[in-house]
Amino acid sequence: MPEQPAGSRPTLEAVAARAGVSRATASRVVNGGAGVRQPLADKVREAVEELGYVPNQAARSLVTRQSGAVAVIIAEPEFRVFSDPFFEQQVRGISRELTANDSQLVLLWVEGPGDHDRIARYLGGGHVDGALAFSLHHDDGLPALIRDSRVPAVFGGRPGSGSGSGAAVPYVDCDNRGGARSAVRHLAGLGRERIAHIAGPRDQTSAADRADGYRDVLFDADPALTVQGGFTVDSGARAMAELLDRRPDLDAVFAANDLMAAGALRVLRERGRRVPEDVALVGFDDVAGVAEAADPPLTTVRQDIEGMGRLMVRLLMRVLSGRDGREAGAPASVIMPTELVRRASA
Amino acid sequence: MPEQPAGSRPTLEAVAARAGVSRATASRVVNGGAGVRQPLADKVREAVEELGYVPNQAARSLVTRQSGAVAVIIAEPEFRVFSDPFFEQQVRGISRELTANDSQLVLLWVEGPGDHDRIARYLGGGHVDGALAFSLHHDDGLPALIRDSRVPAVFGGRPGSGSGSGAAVPYVDCDNRGGARSAVRHLAGLGRERIAHIAGPRDQTSAADRADGYRDVLFDADPALTVQGGFTVDSGARAMAELLDRRPDLDAVFAANDLMAAGALRVLRERGRRVPEDVALVGFDDVAGVAEAADPPLTTVRQDIEGMGRLMVRLLMRVLSGRDGREAGAPASVIMPTELVRRASA
Repeated sequence: MPEQPAGSRPTLEAVAARAGVSRATASRVVNGGAGVRQPLADKVREAVEELGYVPNQAARSLVTRQSGAVAVIIAEPEFRVFSDPFFEQQVRGISRELTANDSQLVLLWVEGPGDHDRIARYLGGGHVDGALAFSLHHDDGLPALIRDSRVPAVFGGRPGSGSGSGAAVPYVDCDNRGGARSAVRHLAGLGRERIAHIAGPRDQTSAADRADGYRDVLFDADPALTVQGGFTVDSGARAMAELLDRRPDLDAVFAANDLMAAGALRVLRERGRRVPEDVALVGFDDVAGVAEAADPPLTTVRQDIEGMGRLMVRLLMRVLSGRDGREAGAPASVIMPTELVRRASA
Repeated sequence: MPEQPAGSRPTLEAVAARAGVSRATASRVVNGGAGVRQPLADKVREAVEELGYVPNQAARSLVTRQSGAVAVIIAEPEFRVFSDPFFEQQVRGISRELTANDSQLVLLWVEGPGDHDRIARYLGGGHVDGALAFSLHHDDGLPALIRDSRVPAVFGGRPGSGSGSGAAVPYVDCDNRGGARSAVRHLAGLGRERIAHIAGPRDQTSAADRADGYRDVLFDADPALTVQGGFTVDSGARAMAELLDRRPDLDAVFAANDLMAAGALRVLRERGRRVPEDVALVGFDDVAGVAEAADPPLTTVRQDIEGMGRLMVRLLMRVLSGRDGREAGAPASVIMPTELVRRASA
């Protein structure tokens, strides 16, 4: 293989020149077209080999509009992306299903609104066939940006209101509200009378739905029994400390995710409260490496996180096949069931 | 905005038709070209706005060969990508520097050789301006694949032999061998006489260089004092258990990274060995959330992980600007210094 200056790629012109054919002929061979005599086609293929020519997918995608890649966009900053096992599990499901479809996963995240223009340009640029986005927030502009980009997309979790117009984007979610109700009913069934709630970020529908589920069961609960966290371990610890200061008599906690429950567990231990004897604790997600590994292991509301990731890909593939005119309309959104998993904490 | 079928994008033809101009005129306006009378240009811009037309970057990149995106490829499976804080720190440095350059980071990883063809197609497809790859392994084919793709690239860590021909790819590494020597000399200086080594994967140059540094100082060490791990916490624990079985008299351990040192610490505690009194322990990396957080805090060899990530981007930007003919040749590789950080473990 001849030396190439760093970073330069051989052009189709170079291939044509080396093969002694016209650019049009070289192009027909490279693009698998018929109508080129075998000896000429062989010369072009030899030149392709010798020069290490790589057909420009950008050119090809003008015709096929296919890049073979799917963007996975996590609407959280990098430190959350790499520290929250929920994202890892969701991405694992997505990754396996994309691999099964021979699509390349490219992962993006969002440090803040300053990233939006750049992400919009990227999505609008024809470099991905579709996008999967999750951990969306109300009013963060990302759902609208994705809709406006007109890239076929599926959301993980129901987007909030104010998330833009444009084509309907299907989503995959779990039954957050029903799951929360089952958690709180379980605590009430244990005879607990002062059940607190550590809620997730108000601007995410999953957190809002879980708080609604709590209120469905305990519609007359003291508002002081609810404190908001940020879906992280430390925010759960802070929320637990505040709850104990406000209502030292509390006897149960429903945390809106397992990471916050793990933080609550730490504070309960530090303050000398036994779990579940003094305070019963239920989480949400049954996230790998957290719920079952906690001491005591967490009773929690399980959702099939990896399965939801796989399902997002399957819906996206249906959207993409619909673009060929074989199917009409966008697929419907899917709400998956949850299941209360009883362990030692409640 | 008029309704669009899901996933379909308005074409330049549609813009031209709506503006009542030729496709060529619409194209000139969209691509910022001059030579179009103001009233016509305004009509085209209005049509672009009304139809929500997004210029096809794939078409544009035929001319500019720029996508505005850079691929970051971690040559490890997803479970390592999301659990090793080294990767997070490296990616954080890369992410910040790419943002400063208004480039979109897209993250890829490699579950196994079965992913190579797909990644090669993606890299060859013109969807990224460059690639940064790290945690490369000998003989895994990825360095060769990246070189052969002719996408401008920078490696994190020196690639091994057998990593392909083609254009020279600069790399950023730390002084692994010198850092290892400083760790082992420190242990010897404490009067330790049976210093073991938990080595990293044999097929990574960082691990091989650190093992060489250990042998530079202890050229006559008992081979039984070296056990290989996999740069993970659990592999460090397994290696420590094996070392204690082989040589119960050992009085110091140099682990080739902090995660393995953390695993070793767990086993030493379980076996009733005090650190540092009975066994002195030194790690490598000074990775966030591990070395300083360990109990006792780890003495370790610090490398500037985030800074190396930033430097990889700066080198890539020089490669990319060199393609414009403003600079000749690829930038030289950079070896960054390391520093022994003394804490309680040795």
